[in-house]
Amino acid sequence: MERTEHHASFGGRQEVWTHASSTLACDMKLGVYLPPAALAGERCPVLYWLSGLTCTEQNFITKAGAQQHAARLGLILVAPDTSPRGAGVADDPAYDLGQGAGFYLNATQAPWAAHFRMEDYVVNELPALVNKHFIATEKIAIFGHSMGGHGALTLALRHPGRYASVSAFAPIAAPSQVPWGQKALAAYLGADPAAWARHDAVALIAGAAERLPLLVDQGDADEFLPQLRPDLLRAACEKAGHPLTLRMRAGYDHSYYFIASFMEEHLEHHARALMR
Amino acid sequence: MERTEHHASFGGRQEVWTHASSTLACDMKLGVYLPPAALAGERCPVLYWLSGLTCTEQNFITKAGAQQHAARLGLILVAPDTSPRGAGVADDPAYDLGQGAGFYLNATQAPWAAHFRMEDYVVNELPALVNKHFIATEKIAIFGHSMGGHGALTLALRHPGRYASVSAFAPIAAPSQVPWGQKALAAYLGADPAAWARHDAVALIAGAAERLPLLVDQGDADEFLPQLRPDLLRAACEKAGHPLTLRMRAGYDHSYYFIASFMEEHLEHHARALMR
Repeated sequence: MERTEHHASFGGRQEVWTHASSTLACDMKLGVYLPPAALAGERCPVLYWLSGLTCTEQNFITKAGAQQHAARLGLILVAPDTSPRGAGVADDPAYDLGQGAGFYLNATQAPWAAHFRMEDYVVNELPALVNKHFIATEKIAIFGHSMGGHGALTLALRHPGRYASVSAFAPIAAPSQVPWGQKALAAYLGADPAAWARHDAVALIAGAAERLPLLVDQGDADEFLPQLRPDLLRAACEKAGHPLTLRMRAGYDHSYYFIASFMEEHLEHHARALMR
Repeated sequence: MERTEHHASFGGRQEVWTHASSTLACDMKLGVYLPPAALAGERCPVLYWLSGLTCTEQNFITKAGAQQHAARLGLILVAPDTSPRGAGVADDPAYDLGQGAGFYLNATQAPWAAHFRMEDYVVNELPALVNKHFIATEKIAIFGHSMGGHGALTLALRHPGRYASVSAFAPIAAPSQVPWGQKALAAYLGADPAAWARHDAVALIAGAAERLPLLVDQGDADEFLPQLRPDLLRAACEKAGHPLTLRMRAGYDHSYYFIASFMEEHLEHHARALMR
């Protein structure tokens, strides 16, 4: 672990770290926000943020306006990159496949399987790394945006008991049924629809082993609505009796302006679960 | 005026506009945040933000976290670009001269004089444009960062009665006495030290026609402190009896993480003056 950036921020500190990931077999960057309580030596819970297509660890830490609320609530925020990176890592010229588009799963297909293991990275390696290097509680929660909203929902649903809470901004809720997801799932997992269903929040709801409430904000002016399908998420949760708070936000689009507008409510949602 | 971006943000709307500037003889972009009150048809005061070296109209609107406070306080925020732009506009390969480095003055020297008239643009053309296109009160205020902090302080000092309030984050307070300023002032204004002094906040304090209080925040871990010289600003204000609130912020650097951390206090400072 090497610290490559550090900035005082709302009484705490925004840092960026680089480390050699054994899971992804490449160097990875991550943003870590330490609230004032953590700097004072208190053990704080950790909230993981998963970003969307094309993002790095920078988007969330520069644009989401989360630090002020994490400072007040005593949350550590960890924002990893969206895929393995580097010259030796497979890539694709399109923005929605390969580097910057890891989809938070473990790829089984060539040429992706060698490095693209973002599920193992986020669920196992990253928390172990964070708990080794920072003074954190064992309690963790997860949220994200778009592809990262898909990641947050599917990782929470696939790992019951792991996360105290989960939320998403404009998640790709039904990747099996939309172009972004179909392209990525076919490339990373092959043609088997059963493999896709294991990484699709809407498909996972029916068999969820834990009734972890889902909090989702979605702008109704989101230019990517046909790729996101909050309607399918609502229907799946209603059918399964899975607790969902889905708020359609009038006039909001897919940008970080939307995310920042509702960041405080998401951090309060997670703080309530993490401090319990 | 053509609107090129619009995003719902904290109940208001963040917009980006392009217009043909007659003062600068080129197309210019500007960020405009309209708070909920403005969208509801209320007349709101306008707070101008001037950015630092290398910035465009994007930096402030994506990173400063100002919209949430402007929404609550009913302020319109206008953030212009930092210089004239375009293929026909003089430039320099260095980041601290030419495009992205207009220094908020009217250049008198070739090749800059043809386009580099940022003082006239910010003080005259921009408010006329804003008041024509948006429902604003006549009351305006100004603030900025680094080169833009220099701009805010010097424009307020050079145009007494024009601004209801002024503030700055890490301003280049004494450009005549530091490398950034000496390079730019020599290029834009020529060798005459008297011309430089007219665009130097520390030099202007002694002859200020108006005792407009200056609010300045400055990180004590700012990597550019030798270019900023808050010590000279403090000395000049003490000598002249000019009201100054200068807050040295322990551990903060020159970044937007610093700016965001104290944005709320600056917006409240301006709201108090603008609503008076």
